[in-house]
Amino acid sequence: MGRPRHPLLSTDRIAEAALDLVLATGGFTITGIARKLRVQPSSLYNHVSGRDDIVELLRERAMSEVAVPADDPGRPWRDVVADIARSYRRSFARYPQLIPLLTSHAVDSPQAITMYDALAVTLTRAGFTPADTLRTISLVDSYVLGSALDVAAPDQPWHTRAEVGPELAAALATGAPKPERADDAFEFGLAVLLRGLSS
Amino acid sequence: MGRPRHPLLSTDRIAEAALDLVLATGGFTITGIARKLRVQPSSLYNHVSGRDDIVELLRERAMSEVAVPADDPGRPWRDVVADIARSYRRSFARYPQLIPLLTSHAVDSPQAITMYDALAVTLTRAGFTPADTLRTISLVDSYVLGSALDVAAPDQPWHTRAEVGPELAAALATGAPKPERADDAFEFGLAVLLRGLSS
Repeated sequence: MGRPRHPLLSTDRIAEAALDLVLATGGFTITGIARKLRVQPSSLYNHVSGRDDIVELLRERAMSEVAVPADDPGRPWRDVVADIARSYRRSFARYPQLIPLLTSHAVDSPQAITMYDALAVTLTRAGFTPADTLRTISLVDSYVLGSALDVAAPDQPWHTRAEVGPELAAALATGAPKPERADDAFEFGLAVLLRGLSS
Repeated sequence: MGRPRHPLLSTDRIAEAALDLVLATGGFTITGIARKLRVQPSSLYNHVSGRDDIVELLRERAMSEVAVPADDPGRPWRDVVADIARSYRRSFARYPQLIPLLTSHAVDSPQAITMYDALAVTLTRAGFTPADTLRTISLVDSYVLGSALDVAAPDQPWHTRAEVGPELAAALATGAPKPERADDAFEFGLAVLLRGLSS
């Protein structure tokens, strides 16, 4: 048998095409994916149920490097939250353009549920009420996603022609080149956050 | 004199067209803006110097409702930072789709500089070193932008078919409907952050 001239359609190829479109244009449409893969839009529905399904495939890409530590009741909760936050940021920082798309859709991917479950178990065990567990998960989520966007910020986050005051100029002068600046700021903020949650 | 059939080209109309394109497709091109405004791409260059200029026009839109409080050395620094963070989030929450575009370009708009200057003055006066002033500005930035994205999250941030553990289920059950949930989580996180910065 000869090889097919085009690779077979699969959820993987659909996700890849959607990702390419988001990276190139900021969004995707079913028609755009079909055109890119040289298939009829209707063929896509043999593999995905629709747009929401494709968003979840993209969420899985963004989360593919999130490492959830093995459950260990003896470990300080701060270390578990910090580990999750670090790997969550690193994983999403690869695809900053996906972030608004993912945050505007309901979460329905197993990777995401596994991560949020681990956070909820850890915080509950540490004595957080259910309401504060939800708020703390939102806090970690917002901080991590904002920080993932900061990883994609330019090396010089400010134009030199901007006239800044002496306090801001002094602060900016301390910034290391990327990615060190973003990493350093993230670790500082993570420590602040965990301190604020503990007191 | 008769009125021109099309409104005159202006930076405002260029910004509006760019914003429409980002909201519809996630991004914009000079060609796309020209097509939308029915002008030649070269005409745009009488008003803007290029793509970076247009991104700054979009930043000004996103920041147009940021209120920087009048400088008052007698006011607690936490209150000033909280005020800025609240209005910054509210202003950006109107345009979540702009966020990755804005964070991937160097800041060069007067509104943004005014806000960052106010943060730098306030933090420096409170005794933060220049390096910690920069880190704290990054922390506020990341948290606010992530929280602005959370405002655009769906009312039900989770699909019901996702199987979640009992701790996460209990936490999710405490969530008020949007926008109360997002507002409540933001205020909780802001308090955590300010507590962590103070200790």
